[in-house]
Amino acid sequence: MRHLLSTEDLDVATATSLLDTADTLKQTLLGREVKKLPTLRGRTVVTLFYENSTRTRVSFEVAGKWMSADVINVSASSSSVGKGESLRDTALTLAAAGADCVIIRHPASGSAHRLAGWLDEAGTQVINAGDGMHEHPTQALLDAATLRERLGELAGRRIAIVGDLLHSRVARSNVHLLRTLGAEVVLVAPPTLVPAGAQHWGAEVRHELDPELPKLDAVMMLRVQAERMHGGFFPSAREYSIAYGLNEARLGMLPEHAVVLHPGPMLRGMEIAPAVADSPRAAITQQVSNGVHVRMAVLYHLLAGEEITA
Amino acid sequence: MRHLLSTEDLDVATATSLLDTADTLKQTLLGREVKKLPTLRGRTVVTLFYENSTRTRVSFEVAGKWMSADVINVSASSSSVGKGESLRDTALTLAAAGADCVIIRHPASGSAHRLAGWLDEAGTQVINAGDGMHEHPTQALLDAATLRERLGELAGRRIAIVGDLLHSRVARSNVHLLRTLGAEVVLVAPPTLVPAGAQHWGAEVRHELDPELPKLDAVMMLRVQAERMHGGFFPSAREYSIAYGLNEARLGMLPEHAVVLHPGPMLRGMEIAPAVADSPRAAITQQVSNGVHVRMAVLYHLLAGEEITA
Amino acid sequence: MRHLLSTEDLDVATATSLLDTADTLKQTLLGREVKKLPTLRGRTVVTLFYENSTRTRVSFEVAGKWMSADVINVSASSSSVGKGESLRDTALTLAAAGADCVIIRHPASGSAHRLAGWLDEAGTQVINAGDGMHEHPTQALLDAATLRERLGELAGRRIAIVGDLLHSRVARSNVHLLRTLGAEVVLVAPPTLVPAGAQHWGAEVRHELDPELPKLDAVMMLRVQAERMHGGFFPSAREYSIAYGLNEARLGMLPEHAVVLHPGPMLRGMEIAPAVADSPRAAITQQVSNGVHVRMAVLYHLLAGEEITA
Repeated sequence: MRHLLSTEDLDVATATSLLDTADTLKQTLLGREVKKLPTLRGRTVVTLFYENSTRTRVSFEVAGKWMSADVINVSASSSSVGKGESLRDTALTLAAAGADCVIIRHPASGSAHRLAGWLDEAGTQVINAGDGMHEHPTQALLDAATLRERLGELAGRRIAIVGDLLHSRVARSNVHLLRTLGAEVVLVAPPTLVPAGAQHWGAEVRHELDPELPKLDAVMMLRVQAERMHGGFFPSAREYSIAYGLNEARLGMLPEHAVVLHPGPMLRGMEIAPAVADSPRAAITQQVSNGVHVRMAVLYHLLAGEEITA
Repeated sequence: MRHLLSTEDLDVATATSLLDTADTLKQTLLGREVKKLPTLRGRTVVTLFYENSTRTRVSFEVAGKWMSADVINVSASSSSVGKGESLRDTALTLAAAGADCVIIRHPASGSAHRLAGWLDEAGTQVINAGDGMHEHPTQALLDAATLRERLGELAGRRIAIVGDLLHSRVARSNVHLLRTLGAEVVLVAPPTLVPAGAQHWGAEVRHELDPELPKLDAVMMLRVQAERMHGGFFPSAREYSIAYGLNEARLGMLPEHAVVLHPGPMLRGMEIAPAVADSPRAAITQQVSNGVHVRMAVLYHLLAGEEITA
Repeated sequence: MRHLLSTEDLDVATATSLLDTADTLKQTLLGREVKKLPTLRGRTVVTLFYENSTRTRVSFEVAGKWMSADVINVSASSSSVGKGESLRDTALTLAAAGADCVIIRHPASGSAHRLAGWLDEAGTQVINAGDGMHEHPTQALLDAATLRERLGELAGRRIAIVGDLLHSRVARSNVHLLRTLGAEVVLVAPPTLVPAGAQHWGAEVRHELDPELPKLDAVMMLRVQAERMHGGFFPSAREYSIAYGLNEARLGMLPEHAVVLHPGPMLRGMEIAPAVADSPRAAITQQVSNGVHVRMAVLYHLLAGEEITA
């Protein structure tokens, strides 16, 4: 694996290997007071964020530091972007300055792929931490890690992804990965929030949530990108919440064993009710915790490239 | 000690123990070129700052790094706050991402206490680095450390806190701690800058500075929060400076041994004259230096929890 | 060497020693996976940036971390500056908080010198990372390191610095250093972009680029500070590009062995054509890479102060 750009690039063996490594790392660190492995000592990891994101940046920074890498944060607001430099020149500069790996968050779909093309020759590896409405592969990996912990193997499981599919890189990455791992995926959203090609993603598309609930092993609620939904074309916040919000009544319609996921940040009371978010059926903080181990596993596979011996 | 939220929580034994640890750390590091102890290796400390503060954030970051902790900075401007996430969810996310300790600066009084309530179960510890107009306990500890170095034990000493008490978390934290350590505290401010309940803090309240000066062992000047003092209710900058500014004439009215403190950032020429700030009677850079050792001591007590052996 | 403020302070022995150390460090790290020397363990380096600069800040941060220093970033936007604190008090605070070295980028010419004056007594060392239109000495050192790699010793070499000399701290630092190392320097710019005293810098001043090209061993293109060039006094972007832009035709007029440098960030198509920037004759990413080693050498000379044994 040279870069992690899309969950489409992960075959079942690679995806399972990443999840197994994450699990080994989690078990290794669990009992320890000193959460620190020497694995990536002397490696330099740069987070290059053109959009704000506490949770993703912090998670990668913790992952790198727990493996003893040097982590350097670059945010667009303090970068040379304002001076008219191209993304390509910024990338080449970071590689020349010693970055072994660049973790990029960027508003333009496809930017991580372009970065990888530019940095391939320099030997610098790229991790896509979210590119526009395209992909967010480590989010999908941490969701899969969490589902495996709660449900066991995912083959044959039925999982719904609910909400604003149109603006969601999380949905796209998850559909690919869950299908690779053998799960059935159903997408649930109002017609205006389903992206054009979604019927070709290999998932069922539904517009009503309630009939799906009793059949599910897990439900992933997406954040409503309220800032992108204006005009009569989209449902209002109230309409959305009534039709798609995961409230306590809907939680009761799920099978006993079914798990609730949310990638955060949550808008409590909008796409998820506070009582649901805080219920033991929700795995939301577990997702965050698994995010660190999954990102450690990805950094490990990219930068150390061998089986881990912990 | 599970959290450090308020100097009200510190009894004389705990406060003295923290100050003694800070002193031990200072002596230990003083002669060393390599200012680095392995004490907190593998511990993750997050600074979560919703207000800008160079001095406090840098001081905590140095303290953490000198004890080999991983320090991760989160500032509100680059956080998920803009996406509508609650402080509680941000806190739970940081804990789930591996934070052993969250150091919070927040404009709302009481926010550190709320954070501690949410994070207690996760085992994540909270340090209040300034919450609104409420408390700033490590500032009070570094002030006490500095006074101990200059004056010896504080029991029976008379210390004035002068200026904008109304907007000052520093004043509140200092009154509690100084009284716990046995000092007499006198608050000096114009009537409109004295908070409502100040007469119950256990300190004398005075409105004139000059009669107090000859009786003091130390005087703490507060920063004028000029940005909060508008309207005819408050003294003008000029009136304030004339009545309460510590100029050279007033320095001459203090006893020879008396010490001048200021928490910084200073407005030279406003609450303190440049010649006073730079005089050997002022302990302002000593306060900053002690700030690092006091914060090391607090991190040590919270995260390592044993007597230090340096 | 107590501080690095200006290339004017570097005699030929010191400059050569810094470049040799950079070279030794580069060779030492080249073959290693673990890019980490223990040299500055326990030393605290603060970057204090009042202007944005990805490349310079990241380069210093990598340099410090590869030598195991603790690196702490302070940017003006999140500093106490907004609270009215003076630069002097900020500097004294950082020194008191444990900074062994402050690396400053500031819009005011001379600010690094003032900082050094204030911090000298505290034993804190200052590196000028760009002060207004005055100096940027580590940029000149990395340019010289790159030229030495490409051309061998610089004595007797003829090097042109082309473009917006008026606003360029890079030009000023390079003229001093290149002349110290024995090179001939020619400055090429339109009359309105030549600073007043340039004829006293010890370099020839020319207004036409084409006649110079065949005589050069190297050409340094400066970034056009387009944001500072408004009004009829300055050439338009188009005029500038036609008269001074390094396009492929001009590249062909240079001798075969001549090297092209650019400090970045580049405005491709303005001062340099994309095909020139990406040609093997350009040493632009090599400059960035040498930047890290040069800054390691500077930190090493300032903070460790001995000959390196790698």
